[in-house]
Amino acid sequence: MKILIVGLGLMGGAYAYRLKELGYTVYGSDINLKSIEYAKNNNFIDDGSVDPLDFIEKSDIILIALYPKLILDFINKYHSYFNENQVITDLCGVKSVFVSKATKLSLPASYISHHPMAGKEKVGIEYAKECVFKDANFLIIKSKETNETKIPTIEKLGKDLGFKRISIMNEKTHDKMIGYTSQLTHALAVSLVNGDHDKNTKNYIGDSYRDLTRIANINENLWSELFLDNKKALIEHINSFEIELNLIKRALETNDSELLKEIFRKSTKKRKEMDK
Amino acid sequence: MKILIVGLGLMGGAYAYRLKELGYTVYGSDINLKSIEYAKNNNFIDDGSVDPLDFIEKSDIILIALYPKLILDFINKYHSYFNENQVITDLCGVKSVFVSKATKLSLPASYISHHPMAGKEKVGIEYAKECVFKDANFLIIKSKETNETKIPTIEKLGKDLGFKRISIMNEKTHDKMIGYTSQLTHALAVSLVNGDHDKNTKNYIGDSYRDLTRIANINENLWSELFLDNKKALIEHINSFEIELNLIKRALETNDSELLKEIFRKSTKKRKEMDK
Repeated sequence: MKILIVGLGLMGGAYAYRLKELGYTVYGSDINLKSIEYAKNNNFIDDGSVDPLDFIEKSDIILIALYPKLILDFINKYHSYFNENQVITDLCGVKSVFVSKATKLSLPASYISHHPMAGKEKVGIEYAKECVFKDANFLIIKSKETNETKIPTIEKLGKDLGFKRISIMNEKTHDKMIGYTSQLTHALAVSLVNGDHDKNTKNYIGDSYRDLTRIANINENLWSELFLDNKKALIEHINSFEIELNLIKRALETNDSELLKEIFRKSTKKRKEMDK
Repeated sequence: MKILIVGLGLMGGAYAYRLKELGYTVYGSDINLKSIEYAKNNNFIDDGSVDPLDFIEKSDIILIALYPKLILDFINKYHSYFNENQVITDLCGVKSVFVSKATKLSLPASYISHHPMAGKEKVGIEYAKECVFKDANFLIIKSKETNETKIPTIEKLGKDLGFKRISIMNEKTHDKMIGYTSQLTHALAVSLVNGDHDKNTKNYIGDSYRDLTRIANINENLWSELFLDNKKALIEHINSFEIELNLIKRALETNDSELLKEIFRKSTKKRKEMDK
């Protein structure tokens, strides 16, 4: 299986490194020559070039590992070189804004979008090996326009990479869920850290604060795109979250110990179910 | 050094186990005979009894590892057996509600309250060995009434247990900071989990959601006390947090990509400083 990875950043690099190890033929393309050289020197790729056209026609899979905004740009520029045997995919964290257009534009190739629920709070191919895919969730998008017969190609990719639970859903469901589990989660961590106005805070933190704020270290260019591309779902999730938080506030204001206990019992039950 | 640990739960057990290993003479008391037997059988204590009076007079340090509400009850009941060479301490997560009273009542013994910033989302002495104190923060309370000459006794206890950064502060500062780093953090995790109304969520989660919600698995009896005993500080922190979260919401509603990036840059900088 020959795969072209377009964009050798943290995630593109992580895919390249693992797929090469697994025996895939891996081509890499990036606008940054240094990233290509790093990938070659570390045996992440079989061959690399700043020009994706060097590999597009001979690849079975083309993985677009670029920022959300650039995915359609890439397809617009190169789709005339795609062929009907190919699967084009991306690993972007939002889907509704581009998947339908990407699918139509990529014809006769099959566009099968996916989302690996794993990463690192780092930027750049140098950290690629730190990405752990094992046992993580892997989401595949099946929209109205999707050529379902090619979904197994991306399913196999996910399994080969070590992902555990592979789910298939449409782009709207994906964005709604991800707005909750990923984007809202990042919004909370960021807000928690930014609300800290005391320079001695680090003397007062335990594991809970450390774990909860890890993702406040965030790539601002990528995440501002992800947030805005999914703003409707994210705003709804923020509003729902605030209702829950205000329930705690009301319990405090009214000294309602029983209500607090009920809230805590509920979260404990729900959190334990998640680990099953 | 002889220490009596009153309350052989998760934390009392963790202290017992480590201090015994370090060569302290450790006595344990609990209303639950099974916990005493567990502590004896696992070599956590030298001797144990349901009646703390068996050990109070011969102990150099008395550690009250009980729920907040019960600390003053214990002191009220036994303070007449305390002597001037003793240090009485507790490891409770809130301080203002009882430290001043406890200090006065414990005379002629010296009351030096402290707070170990480490724990586990578990209940019971069976999980004591899972508590990791190494490199964690350790807070000691110095209030108006504190006999400062005895602070080094508790400082040494913290160092012996492996804690890294030991800070001394008054109870008001403690509660304000802990309301932020610990209680607010738990309130966010609980609210995030409780706001989830989809049964398939676990297929969509990554490490960020998993880490951020770990503490939503919470001991409702302990934490409802901690929250209510520090309600003023916690309500203020919730309000400040909501201001930050609403800033993100406003940036989304107005498509303000630059504001989002500024918010993310700020949190990244602050979070990185925390690791220094």
